[in-house]
Amino acid sequence: MNRIGRSAEYTLIDGQSGFAIAFAGMKFDEKDLALLGSRFDRAKTEMARIEAGEIKNPDEKRKVTHFTDRIGYPQSALFAEVENFASEVRSGRITGSTGKTFDALVVNGIGGSALGPQLMQFAVNGPYWNELDREKRGGNLKLYFLDNTDSAEFADLLRVMDPERTLQLVISKSGGTRETKNNMIAMEAFYASRGLDFSRHAVAVTMAGSELDRHARSGGWLKVFEMAESIGGRTSETSIVGHVPAALTGVDFKKFLAGACAMDVWTRTADPERNPAMMLAAMWYIAGNGKGDRNMVIVPYSDRLVLLSRYLQQLVMESLGKELDLDGRVVHQGLNVFGNKGGTDAHAFIQQLNDGRDDFFATFIEILADAKAIDLGDQVRMGDYLHGFLEGLSSALLGKGRQVIRISIPKLDEFSLGQIIALYERSVAVYAEFININAFHQPGVQAYKLAANGILKLAAELRDGLSKIAPVTGPACDIASKLGKAEQTDEIAGLLDKAALNTDAVSREFDASSGGWIYTVK
Amino acid sequence: MNRIGRSAEYTLIDGQSGFAIAFAGMKFDEKDLALLGSRFDRAKTEMARIEAGEIKNPDEKRKVTHFTDRIGYPQSALFAEVENFASEVRSGRITGSTGKTFDALVVNGIGGSALGPQLMQFAVNGPYWNELDREKRGGNLKLYFLDNTDSAEFADLLRVMDPERTLQLVISKSGGTRETKNNMIAMEAFYASRGLDFSRHAVAVTMAGSELDRHARSGGWLKVFEMAESIGGRTSETSIVGHVPAALTGVDFKKFLAGACAMDVWTRTADPERNPAMMLAAMWYIAGNGKGDRNMVIVPYSDRLVLLSRYLQQLVMESLGKELDLDGRVVHQGLNVFGNKGGTDAHAFIQQLNDGRDDFFATFIEILADAKAIDLGDQVRMGDYLHGFLEGLSSALLGKGRQVIRISIPKLDEFSLGQIIALYERSVAVYAEFININAFHQPGVQAYKLAANGILKLAAELRDGLSKIAPVTGPACDIASKLGKAEQTDEIAGLLDKAALNTDAVSREFDASSGGWIYTVK
Repeated sequence: MNRIGRSAEYTLIDGQSGFAIAFAGMKFDEKDLALLGSRFDRAKTEMARIEAGEIKNPDEKRKVTHFTDRIGYPQSALFAEVENFASEVRSGRITGSTGKTFDALVVNGIGGSALGPQLMQFAVNGPYWNELDREKRGGNLKLYFLDNTDSAEFADLLRVMDPERTLQLVISKSGGTRETKNNMIAMEAFYASRGLDFSRHAVAVTMAGSELDRHARSGGWLKVFEMAESIGGRTSETSIVGHVPAALTGVDFKKFLAGACAMDVWTRTADPERNPAMMLAAMWYIAGNGKGDRNMVIVPYSDRLVLLSRYLQQLVMESLGKELDLDGRVVHQGLNVFGNKGGTDAHAFIQQLNDGRDDFFATFIEILADAKAIDLGDQVRMGDYLHGFLEGLSSALLGKGRQVIRISIPKLDEFSLGQIIALYERSVAVYAEFININAFHQPGVQAYKLAANGILKLAAELRDGLSKIAPVTGPACDIASKLGKAEQTDEIAGLLDKAALNTDAVSREFDASSGGWIYTVK
Repeated sequence: MNRIGRSAEYTLIDGQSGFAIAFAGMKFDEKDLALLGSRFDRAKTEMARIEAGEIKNPDEKRKVTHFTDRIGYPQSALFAEVENFASEVRSGRITGSTGKTFDALVVNGIGGSALGPQLMQFAVNGPYWNELDREKRGGNLKLYFLDNTDSAEFADLLRVMDPERTLQLVISKSGGTRETKNNMIAMEAFYASRGLDFSRHAVAVTMAGSELDRHARSGGWLKVFEMAESIGGRTSETSIVGHVPAALTGVDFKKFLAGACAMDVWTRTADPERNPAMMLAAMWYIAGNGKGDRNMVIVPYSDRLVLLSRYLQQLVMESLGKELDLDGRVVHQGLNVFGNKGGTDAHAFIQQLNDGRDDFFATFIEILADAKAIDLGDQVRMGDYLHGFLEGLSSALLGKGRQVIRISIPKLDEFSLGQIIALYERSVAVYAEFININAFHQPGVQAYKLAANGILKLAAELRDGLSKIAPVTGPACDIASKLGKAEQTDEIAGLLDKAALNTDAVSREFDASSGGWIYTVK
């Protein structure tokens, strides 16, 4: 097969939407695909089991329904309830505690509850949505996020937030997610400090019976929307989690779901070589020897998709980065994802892709239709340059023996964003079958949460202990010893550093002779 | 050495500023450092040569002066000129073409000209600066960027930009950078279309005698600030490139330079084991076997530092990703950088770091002082959780045999940002000496620019050729053959796709039998 025949053979196109994905720039041949035969078969079988509602997350003993729930969701009562709620907020039939029309939405949630809505907002409404006046926003709400437990993020929000005109959306499946809970507690306290009734501003998305569900219902919040147990955070953008922020910011969520479902149909194609998710997963597998030996570099040639690499980082790495396979063998799997926007970042990290380590494959995503026809003379438009940079880089990389996948989309909108997300969701699930792991749990996150709780427990013990030995002055190791916790000197030093900068009870001074800190506890 | 002794031994602290960096979580011992002896010596010698003004970028035959220019810059006439200009803009002594006070700044520049100012703006002024009213901004300007050749970015800006009150800053060393030039041409045309005099809104930062310098001077722009030839884009944040946007947005640039210079002093320490840049570069070298075998994962526990990983991606990968070493041997060097913000992204890609591939080392950056004391009950504040998550993750990773570097900073401000940037600048230069490469050129970027120009040339040939054979209908391979360019079928298909979505001259229809597009050229 010559180069041109290869391009035709390994480019898959959805004629109806124009979505195209080209694999010819990857290093593989029919023999490699044939070797994947049994894996393709297994993935097909297992994907069918997922879609039939069998238990596919054995640890957590739950179904995985994000591929199928979205089919019927637009016709559901819940969907209509969300759209009605958004419409009542827009029209001012539902107002805040002081009777003012809502003008802004704060989404308090982390992981998938933030990354998905952030990607959607940036892609559909653009980077300056919050600076548009209400009319240009079509009466929809400005959008802010609280997605960490960083007091700087909270303080920054307060500088621009009008509490009377802001709707507070708390998204947490369990209600126990600490970052989200912290921001909720802080926001409730802030409203109370202003003499405002928080409940008239508050909406929850959570699982029925969860801690948040009980809290919101007993507090008389404006609305509680129920989310399914069977949808994980990193695959929740096509569920109620994505829907509520979308509806309140004027995003056509039905169109988004239509795009996702169209991709689901396409990625159920029986012939793996005609199935874009099977082929995409096969490329990952072949390029990385089934072990993620190459990094996945995501380069959308579209400013509005700048958050895509961050979104996919979560989807791919949280799903595929696993210690054990399904048979309990230690495998330390994973697939690194990073990226940034093309063409401009070509002047940045692409120097290394061109000339440096051959340890990656690039995925370029092109939006064919220019947002604006900007003439630059000589019959060339701004968008032609963007295309030229993409084609030029692709050609330079291939010339150096590097590997490239190319996705081409006619237009960036809710539909095509739905296609992209659904394609990667299924490719991740397929790849997980190839390597025999559970893509739907996250044991490493639990482990680290436990460790974090240990530190908070130590902090409480330290407070108690210090009150007994204070006043005291010395390096961390002395103080730790006096507390009978010498083996936790490092952790205690960290807590003392934190206390020294944030409380009056502790101060620290640099000791040049030892090169370390001397702490004084009052 | 026990664990606690090791922590003390390998934590370097600058007592005056409180900046601390801890290497004990990396896998190395004294023997490894001893093996680096000759490399430490070489780096010391070469850094001294750089700072003495010798030619250290042999291909481009230029000096490298970003480490030294910043010492005297605050006392220079240029510095005063920038500050005066900013002050006159703020006070309204300098206004736009219609006499209105400037209220916004557009920075048109890519690579270092965008990433540095973006990092600075986000870190110092926060995410919502543009939404603050003029008073809260202290009379300083809102800040926007044009950093690509994407018409969507330009269109998005126009939706919020008031041209009469906007200052247009064009930053390009040569003036030939295509993305920047495109945005400049487009903006000039936009001002002309509104009957506004662009020159009364325009400021340039460029090299004396450059294409942009000539253009701006002949056009009578408000100001042209000169940048030195000896400062590369990715190390230009402490130069005039960083200064002009900073001065216009109320950033204390003198304080920023003081931080950078303080770090420069510290990183000139003769004993490599007491020198944070030498040690940081040594960690990269040892962890990655001198070949970048481990990815550098940057995790700032600070929302306002969310852009740091993107900034460092450019600084590190463009500097270190090289095909040839200084002796002309093929080495394909590099060091992958990616990251995101902690703690929230712990629920995302950190699943893989904990459990998956052991192919990275993490760098955590902590800001000790909380931006706001937010009480969450039980004597715990929001910032304590952030600390707990950092400590917990660090401990979980170390428990799994992963590697961690920790940086701790009392407070995030201009000074500490200067320290961070200067530390990484010098570590990159030192590491480049360890591996014998030129850190200051970017041949791969030139190669790709040439390839991009080839595509634009082909596009022009295609327009001419098509006009001779039109009307024509067929797949890309047929059309390419008719044009005598069969071997460029792929590139021509790409151009036809682009034309089909953006012009009336070309249309395309999907052909189910071949699975490809049939193009019609009028």
